[in-house]
Order: sequence, then structure tokens, then C-alpha cells
Amino acid sequence: MKHSYEYPRAALTVDIVVFALDEDDLQVMLIQRDLPPFEGQWALPGGFVHVGETLDEAARRELAEETGLVDIYLEQLYTFGQVDRDPRERVVTVAYYALVNLAGHNVRASTDARNAAWFPVSDLPPLAFDHPQILEMAHERLRGKVRYQPIGFELLPERFTLRQLQHLYEVILDRELDKRNFRKKVLAMGIVKETGEIEKDVAHRAAQLYRFDKRTYDRLTKQGFNFEI
Amino acid sequence: MKHSYEYPRAALTVDIVVFALDEDDLQVMLIQRDLPPFEGQWALPGGFVHVGETLDEAARRELAEETGLVDIYLEQLYTFGQVDRDPRERVVTVAYYALVNLAGHNVRASTDARNAAWFPVSDLPPLAFDHPQILEMAHERLRGKVRYQPIGFELLPERFTLRQLQHLYEVILDRELDKRNFRKKVLAMGIVKETGEIEKDVAHRAAQLYRFDKRTYDRLTKQGFNFEI
Repeated sequence: MKHSYEYPRAALTVDIVVFALDEDDLQVMLIQRDLPPFEGQWALPGGFVHVGETLDEAARRELAEETGLVDIYLEQLYTFGQVDRDPRERVVTVAYYALVNLAGHNVRASTDARNAAWFPVSDLPPLAFDHPQILEMAHERLRGKVRYQPIGFELLPERFTLRQLQHLYEVILDRELDKRNFRKKVLAMGIVKETGEIEKDVAHRAAQLYRFDKRTYDRLTKQGFNFEI
Repeated sequence: MKHSYEYPRAALTVDIVVFALDEDDLQVMLIQRDLPPFEGQWALPGGFVHVGETLDEAARRELAEETGLVDIYLEQLYTFGQVDRDPRERVVTVAYYALVNLAGHNVRASTDARNAAWFPVSDLPPLAFDHPQILEMAHERLRGKVRYQPIGFELLPERFTLRQLQHLYEVILDRELDKRNFRKKVLAMGIVKETGEIEKDVAHRAAQLYRFDKRTYDRLTKQGFNFEI
């Protein structure tokens, strides 16, 4: 390949912070490295960007190869360029974050990752590279965004109860919310609609199932809102 | 240099969208290229990242070299990686945006830029590369951010009138705001403080000068707010 700029150049990678929600916690997907550096340690899924693919394509390819996750919500987060962040050489990484509904996706390990597994954000193993910093920024972005965009909703199943929605906010914001206030605000925003159905096979009293109002959701995603909770 | 990853690799650049405010308009700093590609055309200031510098350092260096601007507010915006965005070869660019108070900075052209000049965002010349797209995203980010962070204030002098502050919001949001409402909200936020001084040498009635309350400003920058205007 002919280079128009004949100096040593950084290698370019993508790393992806995949969040999911289970009943108790915000989870993040990690892979155990089977190559040096940091062999045997846990890390974010990711890898080198090919010269013929876009950054988004690289992120989706790496995610599919290393974890089997496809067709998920993915957003560019930040590009990390500390000079010594990789012991091998200069590597700049474009970080992404992704939100998935845990129920809807199976995860497998493949290619250069030994294991892929979910870990609760509140209880992580030591991470390779500057991945703790990348993960922290992704978490911060998520906490910030739920307040002014309907972003967290990708973490829920298609039909959900208001209890599940509140739980999502509580886990992301890491604090308890007042049930009455929460419901009032969510319903006032017009972002959810009753489906007319109720939960099935639950031990507690079956609750109403809601779904997102796609039009309001898209409008609010674009113009933003302020969800003071 | 030894490469741990022996494949063709993208070149890495930074590009910087520098916004400033004059009496009428939001301005952006452009440089006229004196090298191909796009020779003679206007473009955002920027250039190749050296292998031994961080991305922030590269952005600050390029800005200083090409425009003479130093010590300004700079924030990473987004990384653009379309495969064909540069006709020479694969070039990935990390875009930044910056806000400056026009009065406090002189601008000069130097190194590989023929001319450096301010242009109103509403009336731009044709731009090189994908720079129209980068500029549009920076403008969008600015519009979004003034609603939930006190970000636009770097564009004002240290002491300013509420009329100047309102003008800043009007220019960024590109619409007129109600004077009474605006003042009520700004004062209620506690972000500005009276200095006890008034404007000098003005044709109209001299107005109170305000300054930012640094503590409230920093707190709101961190936790965000909702400035519904």
C-alpha cells in the first residue's frame, strides 16, 4: 500500500462496551484474552480496524466474531489515544458502547477470545489496557444520557412493566427512585403506551405491560428531554 | 519502527472546529489549503497525529501551528472513519471542537495553511473532505449542549451583560428568545453573579455587568441541568 504520509503510524483498534440488564444489575460483556499482552486477563471485546472497513463496521465485526452479538444498538463513545496505553506500540482505540436486552441474545466466545462472559459492573475482574477508564466513561455516558434521551430502553424487552422500566433507571443511576413520581413522569412524557396485556406466570400481582411509542420515542431522541428523577 | 500488526494501516489525523461569537453570528475558523488534495479550498484546521503525542496534544499543536490559537477550550467530538473520506488513502480523523472568545484571540495563518480566517456558520465557502459533515455535527453538539451544560460561556468575555448572554444563546440556537423569560431562568440557575459594575462607552443605556459563579458553573457542568428556553 502506498502511504501519502511516510512516518510511523499508530495502529487503530475498536473496543466495545456492551451493557445489558439482568434482574439485579447492570452487566458488561468481557472476553478473556488468550494472546499477549495481558494474556489470561479480561478485556473489552475489540480488535484492529481493517483498512477497508469503516469504524462502525469494525466494531460490529469484532463484536460478532468475539461474542456472537449481532444487530444491536451501537454508538461511538470516545477515542482513546494515550501514548502508552498499549505496551506493544502506539495504538489508538475508538471506543463504542452498546446496549442489549439480555434475554434476546446468546453469547459465545470465538476467534481470538478464550471466553466471553457477562460481569456485573459493580463487581469486575481486573481489566487489561486502559479498559477500566473506557468502561467508566461508557457508564458515565449512559448515566448522563438517560436523563435527556430515551436511550436506556434498548435494554428492555419489547413489552415491559413500569416496574421493569423503573428498575432500569435505578440500576443505571445506581439509586432508588420513588415509584409514584417515576410513573407519573414516565406517563406524562408520553413515551410508553399500554398494550392492554398483563404479565403472565408471575408470583406477584400481574402488572400492565407497556411498549414504547415509537413516534414519541424518536422525536424525544432527536430533540432531547429532561427527565428529572 | 516495529509494528505488532503488519497490515496496511490508516493514517490518523485531527481536525478542529473552532467556534467564536461576534455581534451577529456564530463564526468558524477555516484555513485555505495550499497543498493537494483540495488545494486552494477552505478546510478545518488539522493535520496528522505524530506517533509520540496524544490526540489532544495533536489537536492543540495543529491549532497553534495553523491558526496561532492557544489555551482554548477544546473537546473531542467524534471520530470520522468513512473509507473514502480522503482521496489519497485511508485517513481516519478525530474531530475536536473548540470555543473561543473572539475578542481575546488573534488569528494568524502559518505552516501548511495559506490563509486562516473566520467565516459565519450561516455563510460558508465550499469545504474540503467531509468537513461539512464534521462542522454540522459540531454545531449540533453545541446546540444540544447549551441546553444541559453551561458550555457556551467560554464564548463570552469575563464580564458580560445579560443581553450578551442572551445573544449567545440566540446565535447558537438560531432563534429569538423572550428577554424576560431568559433573564428569569438564568438568574434562577444561580450561574451568573452581579459584578456591581456597568457597561462603559455604550450608546444605549448602560447595563449591569455579570460574571460566572465558578462554583455553580463547575457543579452544573458536572451534573448537568435543563435549560428549557
